[in-house]
Amino acid sequence: MGPGEKASSRDVRLAEELGELAARAGWIVLTGGRDAGVMRAALRGAKRVEGSLTVGVLPGRDPGDASPLADVAIATGMGEARNVVNVLSSDVVVACGTGGPGTASEAALALKAGKPLVLLAPSPEAAAFFPGLGAARVAETAAAAVEIAERERPRRGRPRRRAP
Amino acid sequence: MGPGEKASSRDVRLAEELGELAARAGWIVLTGGRDAGVMRAALRGAKRVEGSLTVGVLPGRDPGDASPLADVAIATGMGEARNVVNVLSSDVVVACGTGGPGTASEAALALKAGKPLVLLAPSPEAAAFFPGLGAARVAETAAAAVEIAERERPRRGRPRRRAP
Amino acid sequence: MGPGEKASSRDVRLAEELGELAARAGWIVLTGGRDAGVMRAALRGAKRVEGSLTVGVLPGRDPGDASPLADVAIATGMGEARNVVNVLSSDVVVACGTGGPGTASEAALALKAGKPLVLLAPSPEAAAFFPGLGAARVAETAAAAVEIAERERPRRGRPRRRAP
Amino acid sequence: MGPGEKASSRDVRLAEELGELAARAGWIVLTGGRDAGVMRAALRGAKRVEGSLTVGVLPGRDPGDASPLADVAIATGMGEARNVVNVLSSDVVVACGTGGPGTASEAALALKAGKPLVLLAPSPEAAAFFPGLGAARVAETAAAAVEIAERERPRRGRPRRRAP
Repeated sequence: MGPGEKASSRDVRLAEELGELAARAGWIVLTGGRDAGVMRAALRGAKRVEGSLTVGVLPGRDPGDASPLADVAIATGMGEARNVVNVLSSDVVVACGTGGPGTASEAALALKAGKPLVLLAPSPEAAAFFPGLGAARVAETAAAAVEIAERERPRRGRPRRRAP
Repeated sequence: MGPGEKASSRDVRLAEELGELAARAGWIVLTGGRDAGVMRAALRGAKRVEGSLTVGVLPGRDPGDASPLADVAIATGMGEARNVVNVLSSDVVVACGTGGPGTASEAALALKAGKPLVLLAPSPEAAAFFPGLGAARVAETAAAAVEIAERERPRRGRPRRRAP
Repeated sequence: MGPGEKASSRDVRLAEELGELAARAGWIVLTGGRDAGVMRAALRGAKRVEGSLTVGVLPGRDPGDASPLADVAIATGMGEARNVVNVLSSDVVVACGTGGPGTASEAALALKAGKPLVLLAPSPEAAAFFPGLGAARVAETAAAAVEIAERERPRRGRPRRRAP
Repeated sequence: MGPGEKASSRDVRLAEELGELAARAGWIVLTGGRDAGVMRAALRGAKRVEGSLTVGVLPGRDPGDASPLADVAIATGMGEARNVVNVLSSDVVVACGTGGPGTASEAALALKAGKPLVLLAPSPEAAAFFPGLGAARVAETAAAAVEIAERERPRRGRPRRRAP
């Protein structure tokens, strides 16, 4: 999860590396679906991996608005309420660039839903705020974020991972 | 789209054939995601096809509730409001078994959203009702439903199909 | 529940009478909130009654889009998914003008949610279709619709009515 | 907006005072609707004022779950996605007790939607975090929160206030 047009170049670089490493580890990579910023970067990283599977969950009504890098486009037509869908559909949530209010809402919703949350290279204010709300972990690199995700992901239930 | 536990054996048979034929034609097969009735049958038919891609959009909060036949599980946590997500995410909606109110709502929402709607082997009452609301077509076989879908699917925009 | 701009003049006349009679009987009158068609007419009828309380649940993001006749404006930002909110928030659903797909979705969602549904002066096709899906009743006049609503409304729980 | 069962006694006291002062100033008081914590306290404060109007927007499907202090109960059936409805329906959002993830999501969603946000007696971490995301103001008393709300509320559009 992360900002679109307002993403910093560092957020974009981190998101692309995260998407690639997550896909290599066999995760389905799900983003907010738009062809911008962290969303596009994470999908682009994931699609470098053969056999990867990517999902974009859009705020708007038109699946055609999804990044072409999303194998599956979900159009919710629900604006920011799609953030809830993103969070509930994920086994682990990584917030990449907590500088924006949309990403902050997803981080908070992840904690509310009891999902493992990783803050990837957060601002000092975000790193001080979210761990007070629930089980938030901080990672400084994409590799560390994926490592935490591997450790924290739910063991029970059907396997949610695909062999890459 | 179609009922879960209350699906008739004919609905289930039709849904399974529809899922298989749609996947063979290169469509992503999206259902309401639960492991029951028409939803499970359409996914099962699709997963018989190598390289197929299946999506389940659930009413509940737990992606683990999805049929294991769904490659991608979307957990909306929004109850019947997920019917809107199903419809908006689809290029063509096929209502299989319009005997239940959930499926009827999806058929109506498809027409409201301007999506092509195919009624597969509908009741006489459904066949008389829906075409008065918008561009609903009736098919008596799964093959005819896929044929209509091929003809009616939006041409513009990025390709939504995958090579099987 | 009923259409906006596409409402017939008969639908509008019936909705206005329904809103007035419902408010007089002490009901809170809830509509889709827009300042058009059946929605506006039902609110207008209700606001003729002193002490009435009206609610508009909007598809869009701006509460300022609500009819000025709605005492309370709820902005969902969820498009047609607000139809689910309308239905769940109601003790009894009256579909006024089932000629449109939006109203048809609300009627189907009402039956799915187990809410009492009254079809007010429906088309013959609607009158033949909906009762096959669940507990739908047909009324030919606004007075008959309110009478059915009084009889069918849930008895348990806190009083949902206000003294007019 | 604020926590339910986990609200501190200070949060509850502040919320009750806020509800009363807001209603006295002519505001409709809208909360998350449940009969607990900050939600109940704000409604209780408001209902001390004659002619006040209170609204509860619930996460669940049953309007009967609303606090009896809510004049209007909206049942969304959408879980935490109802937080989006709360925020969009409000002219000004006051976060009372930002210690919990649900309230934090509402504060973030308010900033994302461009709504004026007042943090009432926030934790130091919240007071450091949210103003970096958008137009968040901090108030240490309920009276100060209402004063900011009066100043920041949208001037355009139809009057959203009722004479008490």
